[in-house]
Amino acid sequence: MKIKINKNFLNLEENYLFSDINKRVNAYKEKNPNADIIRLGIGDVTLPLPKIIVDAMKKASDEMLSKDTFRGYPPEYGYDFIKEAIKDYYNRNNVSLDIESIFVSDGAKSDLGNIVDILGNNDIYIPNPVYPVYLDSNLMSGRRIHFIEGNEANNFLPMPDGLNNKPKVIYLCSPNNPTGATYNFNELAKWLEYAYKTGSLIIYDAAYEAFIVDSSPRSIYQIPNAKYVAIEVSSLSKMAGFTGVRCGYTIIPLELKANDVSLNKLWKRRQATKFNGVSYPVQRAAEAALSIEGVKACKENLDKYKENARLLSDLFDRKHIWYSGGKNSPYIWLKCPNNMKSFEFFDYLLDKANIVGTPGVGFGKFGEGYFRLTSFNTKENTIKAVERLEKLL
Amino acid sequence: MKIKINKNFLNLEENYLFSDINKRVNAYKEKNPNADIIRLGIGDVTLPLPKIIVDAMKKASDEMLSKDTFRGYPPEYGYDFIKEAIKDYYNRNNVSLDIESIFVSDGAKSDLGNIVDILGNNDIYIPNPVYPVYLDSNLMSGRRIHFIEGNEANNFLPMPDGLNNKPKVIYLCSPNNPTGATYNFNELAKWLEYAYKTGSLIIYDAAYEAFIVDSSPRSIYQIPNAKYVAIEVSSLSKMAGFTGVRCGYTIIPLELKANDVSLNKLWKRRQATKFNGVSYPVQRAAEAALSIEGVKACKENLDKYKENARLLSDLFDRKHIWYSGGKNSPYIWLKCPNNMKSFEFFDYLLDKANIVGTPGVGFGKFGEGYFRLTSFNTKENTIKAVERLEKLL
Repeated sequence: MKIKINKNFLNLEENYLFSDINKRVNAYKEKNPNADIIRLGIGDVTLPLPKIIVDAMKKASDEMLSKDTFRGYPPEYGYDFIKEAIKDYYNRNNVSLDIESIFVSDGAKSDLGNIVDILGNNDIYIPNPVYPVYLDSNLMSGRRIHFIEGNEANNFLPMPDGLNNKPKVIYLCSPNNPTGATYNFNELAKWLEYAYKTGSLIIYDAAYEAFIVDSSPRSIYQIPNAKYVAIEVSSLSKMAGFTGVRCGYTIIPLELKANDVSLNKLWKRRQATKFNGVSYPVQRAAEAALSIEGVKACKENLDKYKENARLLSDLFDRKHIWYSGGKNSPYIWLKCPNNMKSFEFFDYLLDKANIVGTPGVGFGKFGEGYFRLTSFNTKENTIKAVERLEKLL
Repeated sequence: MKIKINKNFLNLEENYLFSDINKRVNAYKEKNPNADIIRLGIGDVTLPLPKIIVDAMKKASDEMLSKDTFRGYPPEYGYDFIKEAIKDYYNRNNVSLDIESIFVSDGAKSDLGNIVDILGNNDIYIPNPVYPVYLDSNLMSGRRIHFIEGNEANNFLPMPDGLNNKPKVIYLCSPNNPTGATYNFNELAKWLEYAYKTGSLIIYDAAYEAFIVDSSPRSIYQIPNAKYVAIEVSSLSKMAGFTGVRCGYTIIPLELKANDVSLNKLWKRRQATKFNGVSYPVQRAAEAALSIEGVKACKENLDKYKENARLLSDLFDRKHIWYSGGKNSPYIWLKCPNNMKSFEFFDYLLDKANIVGTPGVGFGKFGEGYFRLTSFNTKENTIKAVERLEKLL
């Protein structure tokens, strides 16, 4: 064919991180078939869903069996019942949302990728290291990308100091994937102040909010006036173990206007054209997860992950190894000992302790020399890994 | 804020079709509270899901309850089990698909909207009247749109005669929404020949394929060499009543290359960045629907809709009123009697027969003077509507 393709796709780098990791692990296993390898690189939940959620999904499935309760096309922005459940969930964190500002979707990744559709050719500011979707989705649209460096000095929580005063689109992820670093109230307030001053938009990824245990904001809307400058994208993936069930949501406040055009209205139009709503049984499952009882059941799972994170971060405290995360996050982001590079430490850990983690450089160039461990394995395996690391490091 | 928005959104026309219809119906009901209104405007399935599908969804939900069978992130392009089920479904229609060419999604609307992402600034050719997503998603990207006129003379099956020889992107929908018109083998072969000759891409919407009862192709890949010029988008929405369950799929053949770039590879990258796969229980439900037993159960529902369509088209045959569809489609697209305009006939039908349909002009300017009736109401109501129309027309 002679039609034109989107040439921006040719500028994307292939991401070989996880296939590279698998290759190295498989090569090691071939040489050492009896090695008891512990995987602390998992970026996905592992504990089963609470019964209250599965019951809701099954009940909704049964409704589809009968003519009187069958449901066809769902509303593109979500049923009122789930939007109300999200509103209530936020209310419990002292955030008041307009029901019209809530858009339910099949996941935060879809929304974070698709949000680019409604925006023009802006300068894009992305923390580094960070979740790769912000970068790749903007490269696909040919945007000018600028990285905001995370490092040990700023605790991997880059601030706007030193940025120019032009309007821009800024991505923030807190608690951050992969560093686990979490902005506190004052830090977020400074970002918002910068956004007001410069006419910028903040796209705030709150997917890990349920891991927060200290007083850090769980929603950017806990900061006054955030509704004038910020979109929040979140998900039930981590909060309720929904990575396989698929449900997320995006808040686009009615107050959010770019040169008098309502972003809420643009997104409504985008979703009505290119999305047809979330599966009805999934929406009922999400409603159950967001209820007071559901949140309580989900918290039991979260507490198990948090306990694993504590076991790991206690070890690095004892060893005086620098790390971020571990407290408000399932991730521990540590500085590789002896100035090892990320992949060097990967090989070292695999060889000397049979532990698999994720090289930090896989999340951006400023991740070089760092390493991510996660708390999604079992407690037994996490304890065993801590014992091995205790001896090794 | 001072950031730039996507200004193409400002060129979109608001679609007031269904809100306008509701206003007129509500105004009529207020004046005539006892009117027994029959809705033949429904564009959504109404019959409940077969038990085999709901059982599969519930079984998969139960698997999420146990650590050993719990599933996290699904593969972005679909589990192998559902890709195999789609491959088998096509095999039964004598189409052989490469498993790598199949992408499972939350619905055809998402894929039809998002496919624009991987394409460059091409001339876009869209039949008119037609499903509005092709137009709106391309307007959002600022593409140059050209309409291919459907009319009585071409039976609302526009052909490439008269089009220039430049490479272009062409949307085809067969059986067509809203006209029900269905391309036969020779007509599709001519479109493909035109696409080869001009280096064009055909985006083929096969969402209504399960309604086909004659020898018309159910997949564009039934025509030899279609894999070099056509993407096919389809859905379980109509075939299995999945409008509320949400599952569709897109076939991008490995053979499909634009100036040596594989569209399959571009879409893989797009989906891996901006999509995270379909809900596991939904994929199991879809697998059940596509099985031989599932298709048989779904056919019982389809036969009921088809019987309603037959009742309506028989009436228009008797009345010598021109129409398309009704045979391979749940839609009957009729010429408004006495040269009435679409909305004039809408008011006439509502007032004289208490029947609600959809004005054809709502699907594009070449739909003016036509009207869409659907077979998604009950048999009882369809018979009652036919009796009223028998007297009126």
